[in-house]
Amino acid sequence: MKALIYDGKVHLDKKHPVPERKPLEALIRVLKAGICRTDLEIIRGYLDFRGILGHEFVGEVKESPDPDLIGKRVVGEINVSCGKCIYCLQGLASHCKNRSVLGIKNKNGAFAEYVTLPIENIHPIPDSITDEEAIFVEPLAAALQILDQVHIRPCDEVIILGEGKLGLLCAQVINMTGAQVLTVGKYPEKLEILRKRGLRTCFIDELDREKARIVVECTGSPSGLREAFKLVHPRGTIVLKSTYAERSKIDLSPIVINEINIVGSRCGNFSAAIRLLENKKIDVISLITSRFPLERALEALQTAEEKRSLKVILDTTDS
Amino acid sequence: MKALIYDGKVHLDKKHPVPERKPLEALIRVLKAGICRTDLEIIRGYLDFRGILGHEFVGEVKESPDPDLIGKRVVGEINVSCGKCIYCLQGLASHCKNRSVLGIKNKNGAFAEYVTLPIENIHPIPDSITDEEAIFVEPLAAALQILDQVHIRPCDEVIILGEGKLGLLCAQVINMTGAQVLTVGKYPEKLEILRKRGLRTCFIDELDREKARIVVECTGSPSGLREAFKLVHPRGTIVLKSTYAERSKIDLSPIVINEINIVGSRCGNFSAAIRLLENKKIDVISLITSRFPLERALEALQTAEEKRSLKVILDTTDS
Repeated sequence: MKALIYDGKVHLDKKHPVPERKPLEALIRVLKAGICRTDLEIIRGYLDFRGILGHEFVGEVKESPDPDLIGKRVVGEINVSCGKCIYCLQGLASHCKNRSVLGIKNKNGAFAEYVTLPIENIHPIPDSITDEEAIFVEPLAAALQILDQVHIRPCDEVIILGEGKLGLLCAQVINMTGAQVLTVGKYPEKLEILRKRGLRTCFIDELDREKARIVVECTGSPSGLREAFKLVHPRGTIVLKSTYAERSKIDLSPIVINEINIVGSRCGNFSAAIRLLENKKIDVISLITSRFPLERALEALQTAEEKRSLKVILDTTDS
Repeated sequence: MKALIYDGKVHLDKKHPVPERKPLEALIRVLKAGICRTDLEIIRGYLDFRGILGHEFVGEVKESPDPDLIGKRVVGEINVSCGKCIYCLQGLASHCKNRSVLGIKNKNGAFAEYVTLPIENIHPIPDSITDEEAIFVEPLAAALQILDQVHIRPCDEVIILGEGKLGLLCAQVINMTGAQVLTVGKYPEKLEILRKRGLRTCFIDELDREKARIVVECTGSPSGLREAFKLVHPRGTIVLKSTYAERSKIDLSPIVINEINIVGSRCGNFSAAIRLLENKKIDVISLITSRFPLERALEALQTAEEKRSLKVILDTTDS
């Protein structure tokens, strides 16, 4: 099969063996996959991953120990947990000590024609959700995780820093709470996606000393946290969503002086994300800026790196 | 009067004018003062302060618009707030936008024979608390602030990183909750203060992969946060108490990957600290390692810098 590999450099392997599923895994024919900023960071050395890239996908189950799944269109949770460690037993499976993570840690990813995942990770997708929408289940779940971790109230002001893919999802998700959401970015065409839905946006240099009790840092850049320190009220909360390979020299004293609360936030609940996509509560289609066949995955990665890009989609069947 | 000044370098001014009190301020004859790590950081350039150093003190009121205060032995809250800004109006006076801070920001401190403070900052000290104990009201209040911010339960394990003055106070304060407290440090004679009170301690290199839901970072060093990342459970909380002049290059991705909560923690409630000292719940006297007259303040600062030192006290009357 074709597969996009990172082994110190990125290349398309056209004769990669189709993976063999383990007894409790399904073999899934990947239909489409989405490029995430984490994929680009991995290529810069983040987390030392080696293998097939990709963790956002929709596919069709070809083989499964549960026959009901065969033929179903599905998405998959990316953390493969052991079910036995202290974190699994506390219900923190996404923090499993022995976990592998699809396309991120010790587990081949979905930028390929086939992928395997434990059947407990798999969620069937209702017919009313298109393939392209289904790719957004994983990042939408990550945005929803903020509402699991932080109580955001209708009376709150929330600043979203960064109008990338994750920022645009976070803004829409937090807008559901009734809070006053202001998304701060650089690119008018990206901010326009939110403005069309009635959300407030502004450019970073227009931000006139406005502060908020909650700031969500989605810039994907170490400078985002420094900016967040300036924008959050004392005793406020910064939600940190960005991960990056780069280490940053940063003055952490504002955390103590202003008694700021920083909340790291990663993966979230797939069921809620699927329900919200089914109810058309979140616009994800406007976030797609390019589509490539898997054959042209290297070009797709380059495009995803461009500042004007949002979600770049790989069609793993059309090649 | 004598006063210890920092104006780019530290020196003892023997002919400093006695400060004039503003209408709502008291003039206080300083009796004793304590050297805090923040004073040492200011001398390294932290916060760009210029003026008389010192914010931990006990004194006797000499002049006051409230005649009841005159002659009283008092301590003073260090944040001088405006009472009018949005933070003051929200009850966050310690985060007042226009605040000055005793010996730290735009307000001459207490390493002098006299100091002024608004009478609303002043707390009389009961006779059962000695002068030396009273100096600890401010740092003990800072330790108590952790319990204001984070709910620590009897079933929790808490690791205190750092066995300096603040670490030893934090360990005792958190021990009140019934949680299992482990203080990690380097110096046996400092850890012994806690062991005598039945608290668990260990050396950093003895710490055998133990983790805790709550880690309190009191090392006063940027490396402390890196250590805390290793010691805290996923979804756990790191309380950050240290401030320092140095900027540190740090990999912040563990915050996101392990969904850690970081809580910055600064000043706390004086009334509770006075009550706990009155009830002899916290041992502070064991934390005093040296005493100097104000005349020998430079020597006192050098002593406070020594790794074996804990609280160094300045006697501002005996010189």
